[in-house]
Amino acid sequence: MIMSPEQVAERVGVGMMAEDAASRGLGMEIEAMGPGYARLRMRVRREMLNGFKICHGGFITTLADSAFAFACNSYNELTLAAGVVVDFIAPAYEGELLVAEAKEVALTGKTGVYDATVRNERGEIVAVLRGRSHRVKGKQTVPL
Amino acid sequence: MIMSPEQVAERVGVGMMAEDAASRGLGMEIEAMGPGYARLRMRVRREMLNGFKICHGGFITTLADSAFAFACNSYNELTLAAGVVVDFIAPAYEGELLVAEAKEVALTGKTGVYDATVRNERGEIVAVLRGRSHRVKGKQTVPL
Amino acid sequence: MIMSPEQVAERVGVGMMAEDAASRGLGMEIEAMGPGYARLRMRVRREMLNGFKICHGGFITTLADSAFAFACNSYNELTLAAGVVVDFIAPAYEGELLVAEAKEVALTGKTGVYDATVRNERGEIVAVLRGRSHRVKGKQTVPL
Amino acid sequence: MIMSPEQVAERVGVGMMAEDAASRGLGMEIEAMGPGYARLRMRVRREMLNGFKICHGGFITTLADSAFAFACNSYNELTLAAGVVVDFIAPAYEGELLVAEAKEVALTGKTGVYDATVRNERGEIVAVLRGRSHRVKGKQTVPL
Repeated sequence: MIMSPEQVAERVGVGMMAEDAASRGLGMEIEAMGPGYARLRMRVRREMLNGFKICHGGFITTLADSAFAFACNSYNELTLAAGVVVDFIAPAYEGELLVAEAKEVALTGKTGVYDATVRNERGEIVAVLRGRSHRVKGKQTVPL
Repeated sequence: MIMSPEQVAERVGVGMMAEDAASRGLGMEIEAMGPGYARLRMRVRREMLNGFKICHGGFITTLADSAFAFACNSYNELTLAAGVVVDFIAPAYEGELLVAEAKEVALTGKTGVYDATVRNERGEIVAVLRGRSHRVKGKQTVPL
Repeated sequence: MIMSPEQVAERVGVGMMAEDAASRGLGMEIEAMGPGYARLRMRVRREMLNGFKICHGGFITTLADSAFAFACNSYNELTLAAGVVVDFIAPAYEGELLVAEAKEVALTGKTGVYDATVRNERGEIVAVLRGRSHRVKGKQTVPL
Repeated sequence: MIMSPEQVAERVGVGMMAEDAASRGLGMEIEAMGPGYARLRMRVRREMLNGFKICHGGFITTLADSAFAFACNSYNELTLAAGVVVDFIAPAYEGELLVAEAKEVALTGKTGVYDATVRNERGEIVAVLRGRSHRVKGKQTVPL
């Protein structure tokens, strides 16, 4: 059976999430998958708040990083994050639903660059992440 | 009572951790605090693993980001993270104890730059973070 | 006389370039200016080549950094670069015309985040830059 | 003839600079080379000033980027910059002598992380750069 790139991406998303205890444990859910694309959401829980009573930047980063990971693995070629840059734009509060949308910026050889934007329910940007990925040659992300 | 910078830093650490549900929830503990300095540790739990059965980069970042936050607040002047850059060097596995050491690189006016290095129990570098901070004028981090 | 944001941006561009010996000395030219937007071009000269006979990353960064500076000053409020992140995607060769397009990602209070993309004549991405800016309160970039 | 790592690094420095029109054209000079280490200097020229009459961040980045490139090639294994992160700490003025010192932070497989610090003559930090490098397998930087 031949699958379209969109179908591959969707199945990779399902397969990755099934194995990803960290993302599931934080309550992340896939909203959409596509070639070089992923959109995940996560609600800010009380246990994600830091001493300033706003969502710890690490959890915002984790959401954005997961979206980045799902996007760069969307072709079902095993790909790892080499590094990320995160700019925190606005605070996120308990109970808010955050959505991280990751898109491919460039993909040359085994190296990719992806941008993820985290927004709150009012559409305001909470944080932006830029990630650099490296593909591991000859391995699938999930068995298809 | 006059406190030395070292005493201030120690009390800020205790006070921040008491209020920081996110860092405590992940099992982080303070190993050391000083002026412009913080060292925190965290053990990699099963629920921190991603689909590749290694610690999700987001949790490594969260540990490093907390160390950065504690270091840049060590003078008890309320300081927020503006952005972080993380390079993932080596994977971390379930059960490993990670230590993040954050040090001040530069502090000019209200802007600071801090480096945090995350190492495993064998002393190997797992990740490095560089953070940029902004001080909020005229506010204490914790009441002393 | 009231000027539109577009007119302000254009005049800021002209005024900044007139004073910017560095950008002019490298042969940069403005292609377009707008609110939160700038597009500059620069041809790769022999004296910009490094030992690998490709354009030194520093010059590619300088072009992208100038586009970022022009974009974040486009409202004629004096704004300085706090930091930049550059990913080098593809090499640039002697004689190639590079175009850097900078766009605003977020602007909250005095802090802004801008993305600049550097492309060659075939439209291929050579590098991407993400810049963080800080506005200096109450100062114009150029006298209008 | 067997050369020590220090001798290799020194010869790589000389060989790279001889071929590097960009760094020489900006007046850069090698102060020291070692394994995973390089220190370069450059004087801020009038033509490096931007419209704010301070050294264009691009030239500061170029100096730091060159130090990074020399450091990561110091083993004489051809290595390219994948990306850099630069934080601008303090302005640099015409006539000032800047020194960029680059050190290895981590080197695993083909990927390296290097830190470069740019200081002025008073020892103040002007900028810090973190660079990520990729080694090209099986090639020398300079023929030794």
